[in-house]
Amino acid sequence: MTNAPVEDPRDPLQPEGQPFGERILALADVLAERSESPDGLTCTYLTPAHRAVAGMLADWMRAAGMAVEIDAAANVVGRYASADPDARTLIVGSHYDTVRNAGKYDGRLGILTGLVVVEHLNRLGRRLPFHIELTAFSEEEGVRFSKPFIGSSAVAGRFDPAMLEVRDAAGFQLGALMREMGLDPENIPRLARDPARLAGYLEVHIEQGPVLLEENLPLGVVTAIAGAVRHAVTVTGLAGHAGTVPMGQRHDAGAAAAEMVLAVERRCAGTPALVGTVGRLMVPNGAVNVIPGRCEFSLDVRAADDATRDAAVADIFREFDAIAARRGVTIERHETMRAPAAPCASRFRRALAQAVTAAGMRPFELPSGAGHDAMMFSGVTDIGMLFVRCGNGGVSHNPLETVTAADADAAARVLLDTLSRL
Amino acid sequence: MTNAPVEDPRDPLQPEGQPFGERILALADVLAERSESPDGLTCTYLTPAHRAVAGMLADWMRAAGMAVEIDAAANVVGRYASADPDARTLIVGSHYDTVRNAGKYDGRLGILTGLVVVEHLNRLGRRLPFHIELTAFSEEEGVRFSKPFIGSSAVAGRFDPAMLEVRDAAGFQLGALMREMGLDPENIPRLARDPARLAGYLEVHIEQGPVLLEENLPLGVVTAIAGAVRHAVTVTGLAGHAGTVPMGQRHDAGAAAAEMVLAVERRCAGTPALVGTVGRLMVPNGAVNVIPGRCEFSLDVRAADDATRDAAVADIFREFDAIAARRGVTIERHETMRAPAAPCASRFRRALAQAVTAAGMRPFELPSGAGHDAMMFSGVTDIGMLFVRCGNGGVSHNPLETVTAADADAAARVLLDTLSRL
Repeated sequence: MTNAPVEDPRDPLQPEGQPFGERILALADVLAERSESPDGLTCTYLTPAHRAVAGMLADWMRAAGMAVEIDAAANVVGRYASADPDARTLIVGSHYDTVRNAGKYDGRLGILTGLVVVEHLNRLGRRLPFHIELTAFSEEEGVRFSKPFIGSSAVAGRFDPAMLEVRDAAGFQLGALMREMGLDPENIPRLARDPARLAGYLEVHIEQGPVLLEENLPLGVVTAIAGAVRHAVTVTGLAGHAGTVPMGQRHDAGAAAAEMVLAVERRCAGTPALVGTVGRLMVPNGAVNVIPGRCEFSLDVRAADDATRDAAVADIFREFDAIAARRGVTIERHETMRAPAAPCASRFRRALAQAVTAAGMRPFELPSGAGHDAMMFSGVTDIGMLFVRCGNGGVSHNPLETVTAADADAAARVLLDTLSRL
Repeated sequence: MTNAPVEDPRDPLQPEGQPFGERILALADVLAERSESPDGLTCTYLTPAHRAVAGMLADWMRAAGMAVEIDAAANVVGRYASADPDARTLIVGSHYDTVRNAGKYDGRLGILTGLVVVEHLNRLGRRLPFHIELTAFSEEEGVRFSKPFIGSSAVAGRFDPAMLEVRDAAGFQLGALMREMGLDPENIPRLARDPARLAGYLEVHIEQGPVLLEENLPLGVVTAIAGAVRHAVTVTGLAGHAGTVPMGQRHDAGAAAAEMVLAVERRCAGTPALVGTVGRLMVPNGAVNVIPGRCEFSLDVRAADDATRDAAVADIFREFDAIAARRGVTIERHETMRAPAAPCASRFRRALAQAVTAAGMRPFELPSGAGHDAMMFSGVTDIGMLFVRCGNGGVSHNPLETVTAADADAAARVLLDTLSRL
């Protein structure tokens, strides 16, 4: 572990070597040493590991020439000021918390890419026409308190004070825990930035999917963050003896649900950037010799725009109703979540695509199916996102998550070039 | 509750009233008062309720002119001797144990039908050219010790002494429990009847399905007891983020399993007396935002003959393999049970059908998809079964299970007539 900025004799913008990328990966390795579990990486909100990571990030940002504060929500904010004190502020951010048994790059890749870029600007003594607030958001995954975006919602002015009453699985109350850690939750509302003073929000993130890998591209420009609609569905048929009820006289809730699962798949397969998933699927108290009387499943549908998604959900439910009617079963469903899609600003999409092209790569756009801190800033300021190729088939939320030094290097160079284009 | 035989002035074989049926239902109500749970009927092997029911049955059999013994397996055996001491023995039986929260007729209907018929013969002083052993088998459901047919396997000479080591959920060992109850498990092997001395095995049972109800018939003659083949199936795909993996790049174990469920249904729908059921179905640790990486389900396939069933299973697995290959998932399966079909003897089918016709009903044959004590005697002696219409849509293993007095009466009259035809 080092707190000193890199003193590499090579110019990181020269093609030989990937000094940005190598440093990003080395720093991610250092952060990953701090975990709340001995095997694997777990770093959830306000644990000792989480506090240690915040301290390291603060040290590194300071060494890179930033004025650093750990704010009331435990975000680590490094300010790299513009020469113009009246300039607006571009937030460059991602999160430093992790899921359980996580990969090393989800969230942290974006923070560290911002870090090496500011280090480089600082080394060259270059100031930009806007302030940069490199922000390591404290909480995005929602693991410990079952609600995501604690850090970024505070900065975006969307923190719900009712959250302070929530308790984790061990019974610790969020507000009390914050105070114990020396944070002052009363100050969270004051973290909200004035939208008029913002120049936008940029986030680099590992893709967490296989699209760039399949396209054979290191980077992709995000068009929008898909908004998910989720439903809990219960199919009720008629339980019966597996041996005594002829096939034609059954009202099998499991078979009806199976047909619905395939209807989801079929409806979503036809449309680009539309995905539909049945992640939970269960016959409660199912027995080998009993025809299922009940089957429960979850539905998650996402698209880059809300109209595409909502049309799909409507078609899916029409199909569910037809299946239920044909099979003589009933269906109950209730919506458990509805998040609007967060479109990326065209000026960021354009600047990122130009920087990708200038770096000799094919510009490629894709939606983000996963949620990101950027969503919190949608409607507050312009948002933009750059995705970095995810190795190992695109696996994420898993220790097998990988990024290459070359791809991380490309991301840093493109972020640097993008900043100069804004 | 009464121990005295009915002294009904009406001739039970006259059409006015249903004295056989009314008595059967009244006695079933009395038996159902003995339960190990305060709400609903549960009567599992060797509980106080089970012992009480055995005592009542023994009293009633004795009052009906039978020589009664409660044997080493807790079967209640009432012998109604032939005039010819060298005659062979016809076993008329069914079971008196129940599932949890059971109906009142599953098993007991057959015992009580036999009881009222012997009462009637005894009242008339009529002896048959064979001995009758009316047998109330102690255990058929397999609830307490997870293995069915404890009672009938003993009489059929198929009791496995290793069973004595098995413990129930509370830790009671079967052999020790038998001794505590005054039974002598060492004597169980001696319960096996000499096949050469048997004239056959006849069982009356509630259908436990909707076929007779749909046919609008009180009674049906069983062609065969279907043998089940069961498998446990695990589909392994690739877990992934529900938002980030495009539909075309998924290897969704849940969707693959859904397609397999429908393949089972489709293959079995085409063939009469063939049924296939996926009773257990689950994505383990499924989450709304995770593409299922694994899905587990059970398969139960039954038919009236083994060749029909095995051909269906082979087709189903061929289809499973094709689905798995097409979707890039793997499938593991292992057989958890294989029971051969037990065909009913044509002489019993014929006699039962003649008696049904003589009673003014349309003779109708159907297979039994459920297992019954009769299965234990398949290969030991000729078996025959008579099904009685099950009300409420055919629901069984449920307090809603019903039989009408008229149908029970018809069953008793047909059993009586059948005995005179053998």
